[in-house]
Amino acid sequence: MDKLIITAAITGSVHIPTMSDYLPITPDEIVEDAVKAWEAGAAIAHIHVRNPENGLPVSDPDLFLEVHSKIKARCNLILLPTTGGGMNQTTEEKLIPIKKLQPEMCSFDPAPFNFGIFQIASRFKEFKYDWEKEYLELCKNVTFRPTFNDDLIYAKTFLEIDTKPEFEIYELGHVSYVKWLMEENLVKLPVHLQFVFGPMVGWMTPSVKHLVLIHDEAKEVLGQENFTWSVAAGGRYQIPITSTAMAMGAQNVRVGLEDSVYAGKGVMAKASADQVNKVKNVAKEMSLVPATSDEAREMLGLKGLDKVNF
Amino acid sequence: MDKLIITAAITGSVHIPTMSDYLPITPDEIVEDAVKAWEAGAAIAHIHVRNPENGLPVSDPDLFLEVHSKIKARCNLILLPTTGGGMNQTTEEKLIPIKKLQPEMCSFDPAPFNFGIFQIASRFKEFKYDWEKEYLELCKNVTFRPTFNDDLIYAKTFLEIDTKPEFEIYELGHVSYVKWLMEENLVKLPVHLQFVFGPMVGWMTPSVKHLVLIHDEAKEVLGQENFTWSVAAGGRYQIPITSTAMAMGAQNVRVGLEDSVYAGKGVMAKASADQVNKVKNVAKEMSLVPATSDEAREMLGLKGLDKVNF
Amino acid sequence: MDKLIITAAITGSVHIPTMSDYLPITPDEIVEDAVKAWEAGAAIAHIHVRNPENGLPVSDPDLFLEVHSKIKARCNLILLPTTGGGMNQTTEEKLIPIKKLQPEMCSFDPAPFNFGIFQIASRFKEFKYDWEKEYLELCKNVTFRPTFNDDLIYAKTFLEIDTKPEFEIYELGHVSYVKWLMEENLVKLPVHLQFVFGPMVGWMTPSVKHLVLIHDEAKEVLGQENFTWSVAAGGRYQIPITSTAMAMGAQNVRVGLEDSVYAGKGVMAKASADQVNKVKNVAKEMSLVPATSDEAREMLGLKGLDKVNF
Amino acid sequence: MDKLIITAAITGSVHIPTMSDYLPITPDEIVEDAVKAWEAGAAIAHIHVRNPENGLPVSDPDLFLEVHSKIKARCNLILLPTTGGGMNQTTEEKLIPIKKLQPEMCSFDPAPFNFGIFQIASRFKEFKYDWEKEYLELCKNVTFRPTFNDDLIYAKTFLEIDTKPEFEIYELGHVSYVKWLMEENLVKLPVHLQFVFGPMVGWMTPSVKHLVLIHDEAKEVLGQENFTWSVAAGGRYQIPITSTAMAMGAQNVRVGLEDSVYAGKGVMAKASADQVNKVKNVAKEMSLVPATSDEAREMLGLKGLDKVNF
Repeated sequence: MDKLIITAAITGSVHIPTMSDYLPITPDEIVEDAVKAWEAGAAIAHIHVRNPENGLPVSDPDLFLEVHSKIKARCNLILLPTTGGGMNQTTEEKLIPIKKLQPEMCSFDPAPFNFGIFQIASRFKEFKYDWEKEYLELCKNVTFRPTFNDDLIYAKTFLEIDTKPEFEIYELGHVSYVKWLMEENLVKLPVHLQFVFGPMVGWMTPSVKHLVLIHDEAKEVLGQENFTWSVAAGGRYQIPITSTAMAMGAQNVRVGLEDSVYAGKGVMAKASADQVNKVKNVAKEMSLVPATSDEAREMLGLKGLDKVNF
Repeated sequence: MDKLIITAAITGSVHIPTMSDYLPITPDEIVEDAVKAWEAGAAIAHIHVRNPENGLPVSDPDLFLEVHSKIKARCNLILLPTTGGGMNQTTEEKLIPIKKLQPEMCSFDPAPFNFGIFQIASRFKEFKYDWEKEYLELCKNVTFRPTFNDDLIYAKTFLEIDTKPEFEIYELGHVSYVKWLMEENLVKLPVHLQFVFGPMVGWMTPSVKHLVLIHDEAKEVLGQENFTWSVAAGGRYQIPITSTAMAMGAQNVRVGLEDSVYAGKGVMAKASADQVNKVKNVAKEMSLVPATSDEAREMLGLKGLDKVNF
Repeated sequence: MDKLIITAAITGSVHIPTMSDYLPITPDEIVEDAVKAWEAGAAIAHIHVRNPENGLPVSDPDLFLEVHSKIKARCNLILLPTTGGGMNQTTEEKLIPIKKLQPEMCSFDPAPFNFGIFQIASRFKEFKYDWEKEYLELCKNVTFRPTFNDDLIYAKTFLEIDTKPEFEIYELGHVSYVKWLMEENLVKLPVHLQFVFGPMVGWMTPSVKHLVLIHDEAKEVLGQENFTWSVAAGGRYQIPITSTAMAMGAQNVRVGLEDSVYAGKGVMAKASADQVNKVKNVAKEMSLVPATSDEAREMLGLKGLDKVNF
Repeated sequence: MDKLIITAAITGSVHIPTMSDYLPITPDEIVEDAVKAWEAGAAIAHIHVRNPENGLPVSDPDLFLEVHSKIKARCNLILLPTTGGGMNQTTEEKLIPIKKLQPEMCSFDPAPFNFGIFQIASRFKEFKYDWEKEYLELCKNVTFRPTFNDDLIYAKTFLEIDTKPEFEIYELGHVSYVKWLMEENLVKLPVHLQFVFGPMVGWMTPSVKHLVLIHDEAKEVLGQENFTWSVAAGGRYQIPITSTAMAMGAQNVRVGLEDSVYAGKGVMAKASADQVNKVKNVAKEMSLVPATSDEAREMLGLKGLDKVNF
């Protein structure tokens, strides 16, 4: 049976507490949900942290450290923290938690993008916390803007601490950043790509067609043997698009409350584990079994949990 | 919850008894498997018949009638017989069972194609029946060759007996036959298309990309509002491609022993129902439930089981 | 400067004399137009013959021989006769002229197709010749139907007489026939493909998108290094689609009265040379120059004009 | 005959004087080349300005005014200035020349992007001016970063002064910005899109396939009737990609020294008019004639030269 690496993106920095009572907020909630996802079959957890008081996405190195070490104490998960997690951070600020944690993997956004979540604000009349409405609308004034020099700094840092980048790819042209870093000898082969789709202004809609197009682009630009890949799709597209990725031979798919607060039409996910179970069920029907964390380490060429700094 | 019409293609005329001990051959075996598929969630059964003695695909109207009436006696299935079922038949011969049965639906191949199953012969050293090897190789000398005039005859016959055609579409250009029949006012709208993929010489490989391309072609040529669609994919592609179709919003998917003798990697399907269960499981994770036969009748605009001639 | 091989398809078997007073019909007219096309920059002429009395497309070996030897006496053209030229011929009949001529190249249709020119009949009220209306409508009852065994016979014959096939590819799946013949070691590499598009029932419309799709399919199925390619597009699509092929790096494009009787909007082509001049002008602006016949021989690996049998 | 709107992008802000002795730099050179392009058949000129002393791209409102009024004094061209023209400008700074000129059209970049011209620096050993090398490398630290709020400000400003935006679209997802502005009623229909391709890190390569994909995306997202379009492609792709756009039915194509300093392989363009002549020649072979400036005004729905402020 072929193996499928399942990633659970535990809490992210997109969704606000008003959207779901189940969104993990405190370090212990995040730890608990990550462990549950691992028990359900996830091999990787993607980690963001939030202010334990009010759920505001933050990038506090101490919170990152607490979450990472507590998860490590309880299970074998590959931990893949975000590079940053807040809006409007400098490159140096984004790298602080990473340099400290020296994780096995880390997200790497090579190209600039806007994050059009402001339209979500109009869906809610009342908010749990004061910061939420303003936070959703903040994106109207913010561009995530890695420059070419930022990319060089990220890539060199990742190489130094032997952290494997997960390249977040939103558009066809973004693949060429990865090619450039390959040419600059700043990444190990095969690289790992994650195609990211969200139903938002400024992005391609999450569709089977768009997934085929971006995957084809990666094959053409990088060469099929030079990359492994995953997909993350927001909202109701989560299970359809990850299922399609399995049909296309993806090594990895991502689910989790970062991308969707649902586990089926009209059903709130109580934890990312609910969505892990859903993709596991689909995978089974395609004769795929979830890779264990150690199997995923081997498939992705990771340094191992003994070499992280938490 | 949205509804998904599941079709079970019970025995077909491609697979030979040597390939699977579970291939239904006699009328009663075919009936039994069709009923089981219905119990598992299929709304439609696609019917071929075989010589009860040795499993050779035939097109004997009496066998068709026996199978259809016995299934009707036991359940509510929409029965969708093949137009023909043998190689090298004339147009008139192909239409004999259809005119007799006047079914709710019927397959309609508008375009010529070759059927490259001859390479399968080399996989087997011994055959259960004498006819099998020769049968697989017969396709090297046969072209399925509906002409434009044949298409006109089929379409008029189907209209007369109010049988809804399921257009079998193998290539992008085939969609234009359907457009032409629309322009000739010989089909009711919306038409029903089935995209057919097999891992064979002469056909596009069953892939997510090809499914997207052919679906896009249909949208562009016919207009999205003018068709409903299904997909059938051979061999190990059956579940991945039907799952992708669900992700793309297909109203219908087809499984069954006609297309694959497996129900998972290395697992022989004991009946088409095994594969119905597999797609039903995937569908559930995408918040889709199997349409009942009556729901499918409404979705596809069928005349009803009381208007057939069996 | 890169070289572009221009093919002129002098008269074909699609167009009827009623469509254009300039359609070459007698051997001498065909010879004259081929030589003019060569003078204008064509390296290859694709040859059909017609009944000199009334223009009916025929496949008379003596006419083929007359045309081929008269052209050879006047210029250096690569001659690429059709395999057949009439409707409803047997495989053996189709091969008679080819075996006799032993040309440098020859067309090879590996897959079955219908030829939907019947709709053209309604454009004309009067016809120059009695046979024309019936001829256009004959296609409603005819399927061009090479079987797999036919393909094997063609390929072996072509190998024996060292005639390079030009594979006529109408649909994405047709590429897999060529792959199969490669696997059977019945073709020399690189093979030469011609993508053929006509605005007719049963075929993909001639569009930039369809050209990209079929070229991509060939790259994926055959490997980019294993084929050279050309395109022929009917009617008003001739210049736009051949121009696009140049932009895509095609080694070869085809024009000629077989595909279009126009040389610009509302302008009748007086000979295929008019269209050769048009593509030559476009080519110049893309820094491409027409390959001479000898340059084309080298690019395509042909045996040479001294080894033909005419 | 159908009309084709040809745009000449006179000098841009990408190319450095070292690349071509013919790059227009002073206002009078820019004016001269714009007028020549108009005489050759261009209906629109895209205007950037440079420091007259050393060719550095700048965004000085007085230079913009001088160029615009001098061109207006000599011909009927539609003038389409850039929004900005320098790196690292604020939104307000970018809008200063536009508010002052109130032109008929103006470029509008709705989405963030990096501009990977730094690799060009390594092609040259010596530079004409001191600023050039540093300028090419500056892009490594700069992201063009319109936010959603910037887009709202641009769109409202353009509406107020009745300047038609030319949306610069670099990626498939960028089309959704235009859809959003349509939904916000901040643009008049049909909108005008320009698909921009450059052979640079961070962008899709200029290819026929990519042009088809981005055009398809626009059709799907905006609806074919809601936009007109153009294409600009850098370097040696200029003529092949604009020719393909004509084959696809584009209303508009852009050439000019901003995109390429060549007019054919190894031939330096002496002015943008050389490239206008090239696309005009290709257009002629496709039965297209250059639209006059007044015809273009009608096709694009512009306010007219009498309503600008220069």
